[in-house]
Amino acid sequence: MPAATTASVLHQVPIDLGDRSYPISIGTGLLDDPATWSGVPQASRALIVTNTTVAPLYAARLQKTLEGRHRAVDIVALPDGEEHKNWQTLNLIFDALLQNESDRKTVIYALGGGVVGDMAGFAASSYMRGVPFVQVPTTLLAQVDSSVGGKTAINHPLGKNMIGAFYQPRLVVCDLETLTTLPAREFSAGLAEVIKYGPIADMGLLDWLEVNIDRLAARETDALAHAVRRSCEIKAWVVGQDERDAGLRAILNFGHTFGHAIEAGLGYGQWLHGEGVGCGMVMALHLSRRLGLIESKFVERVTALLRKAGLPVVGPALGADRYLELMRVDKKAEAGEIKFVVIDRPGSAAVRAAPDAMVREVIDLCCRPA
Amino acid sequence: MPAATTASVLHQVPIDLGDRSYPISIGTGLLDDPATWSGVPQASRALIVTNTTVAPLYAARLQKTLEGRHRAVDIVALPDGEEHKNWQTLNLIFDALLQNESDRKTVIYALGGGVVGDMAGFAASSYMRGVPFVQVPTTLLAQVDSSVGGKTAINHPLGKNMIGAFYQPRLVVCDLETLTTLPAREFSAGLAEVIKYGPIADMGLLDWLEVNIDRLAARETDALAHAVRRSCEIKAWVVGQDERDAGLRAILNFGHTFGHAIEAGLGYGQWLHGEGVGCGMVMALHLSRRLGLIESKFVERVTALLRKAGLPVVGPALGADRYLELMRVDKKAEAGEIKFVVIDRPGSAAVRAAPDAMVREVIDLCCRPA
Repeated sequence: MPAATTASVLHQVPIDLGDRSYPISIGTGLLDDPATWSGVPQASRALIVTNTTVAPLYAARLQKTLEGRHRAVDIVALPDGEEHKNWQTLNLIFDALLQNESDRKTVIYALGGGVVGDMAGFAASSYMRGVPFVQVPTTLLAQVDSSVGGKTAINHPLGKNMIGAFYQPRLVVCDLETLTTLPAREFSAGLAEVIKYGPIADMGLLDWLEVNIDRLAARETDALAHAVRRSCEIKAWVVGQDERDAGLRAILNFGHTFGHAIEAGLGYGQWLHGEGVGCGMVMALHLSRRLGLIESKFVERVTALLRKAGLPVVGPALGADRYLELMRVDKKAEAGEIKFVVIDRPGSAAVRAAPDAMVREVIDLCCRPA
Repeated sequence: MPAATTASVLHQVPIDLGDRSYPISIGTGLLDDPATWSGVPQASRALIVTNTTVAPLYAARLQKTLEGRHRAVDIVALPDGEEHKNWQTLNLIFDALLQNESDRKTVIYALGGGVVGDMAGFAASSYMRGVPFVQVPTTLLAQVDSSVGGKTAINHPLGKNMIGAFYQPRLVVCDLETLTTLPAREFSAGLAEVIKYGPIADMGLLDWLEVNIDRLAARETDALAHAVRRSCEIKAWVVGQDERDAGLRAILNFGHTFGHAIEAGLGYGQWLHGEGVGCGMVMALHLSRRLGLIESKFVERVTALLRKAGLPVVGPALGADRYLELMRVDKKAEAGEIKFVVIDRPGSAAVRAAPDAMVREVIDLCCRPA
């Protein structure tokens, strides 16, 4: 375990949302450093929400550091996986809070990936109608995506992320050392969300990724620090203009409409979220090409990068009917019409409807039986 | 059924909460009048959330009126009663929304009492992270209390209203005609919350109630209109200063700390919420007297009015230990210390801790075996 003195904050990204603003700290050794947590509101109790995979790695370390701040620091370890992102699991958090006689000042720390963050955040938003919340993302996907923006949710059997809240954390701590224990498949899934920021907003990032993909895959600290920082900055720029997801923010869902359908169609937990998004981006790029917005060359360029990042670029053969049915309950849909995030030119995205026949062509082209 | 032309708005109470402001319409014949709903956001779909008691009385009428505004108006009728204010019942609302392919613009109308409003409101706050919400309270308690202030919640087996959100409606419609079908016991329970506003904020209202209690009990329209209007105004004044319940708003919980313990101790649904609050006010008044804040005469005066309103003024004998245990999970408690709303002088309330021994004395004095 690194001593507290080895802690190093490499970047601070401010998220500017008026009285709901908060900082993201990106660095190494942050978990063990009491200084990391000095901005968290005073409270006698805290609850670390984590999962059974992350708990043995980091929960005791975080608990030890936080015991200098809170009189009692409890831990609840949820079962791991998207298939557990439901009410039953959420209720384990409420049970722990109430059994510990937690009050309105109790701070909830989310230690884990996107599923832990989404559930701990929704629990924090709704326990006694809102208690303070801190994100400690330990996966690449959570560090570059779900820790910024305040979206929290659980799944419903009829749709993903259907029940939730907009609820901002007080602080996000991205300790890059936690990424070293991440399985390769999960690391690749996180890269999907990093790559996403290129086509929708920043061709400079796409160029950088093509050059540095091997250093990233080797999890070199300075490459990780840059990828996490730039992703958070781009997401913060988008969210700062559209906190409640009324317009621009939809571009962050590039790849997600197809991706959610893949996840739901196979059953949550078969494909990782980032894998669905990676493959969904390929499908959304083909759709953008058919809409006449971009050239084949750009589709191939991004597809090649996704493949290099270890992501699936061919979708499962659920059949076009099933894809369309699943996409009609997407939150972007309005009165049953599916809205797709498309690339309208490299580095820029837009939200559009598309003819069913064209969507079917894309599905048939991009999906094959396993 | 009254024709639309007989509709009459008697009072409009504006609730001023910045960009979350909304009006309360108080009057007669409002359910059937299309003009009542002209301020509701445009949406192709709507869902009326009601319960099995209220549905046969008013749901079809409201549905008919709203069909001029929305292409499809669905109805979901929940089982009636506080004991159903839980996740299982809440999920019936999500099931209905998703089965109907409701989108982010779908408007949820809560038609019923406080339980329906709390559940429909929490569902509206969390379905796709928030859809527009309209309150149509049909009980006196809901019209004078739960429809103002944006508190929504469900119960947890370990505590009442433990899981919820602050979420403001776009409009509240109090049709006084719906109060004519209210059972006597529920009407009395509503009077408890009306009476509450006297001791905590407005001695003028207390004087008026003592003179007009019989006209209210007879449900005379002008008496109802005044009681509902004045209650909403006082609550709006408090909530406007403290929307997120950080301080002043706690005075609205006068009688609720003891009252919640009665409700939970007997099992939700045995006593009505307003009955618990009525009896809880008697207990909180005795506590205020023992703290040296008010005289016995004032305790007797309010107790007499509560008795005239048909409310229980003697609590169930749960034992002081059980009362204290239940009150320690109250949301106002901090680090296990119970905070009571006390009357510090007639017409003014404050939040205070009290010695356990004194609280035990009050419980022993005010509670007897049934």
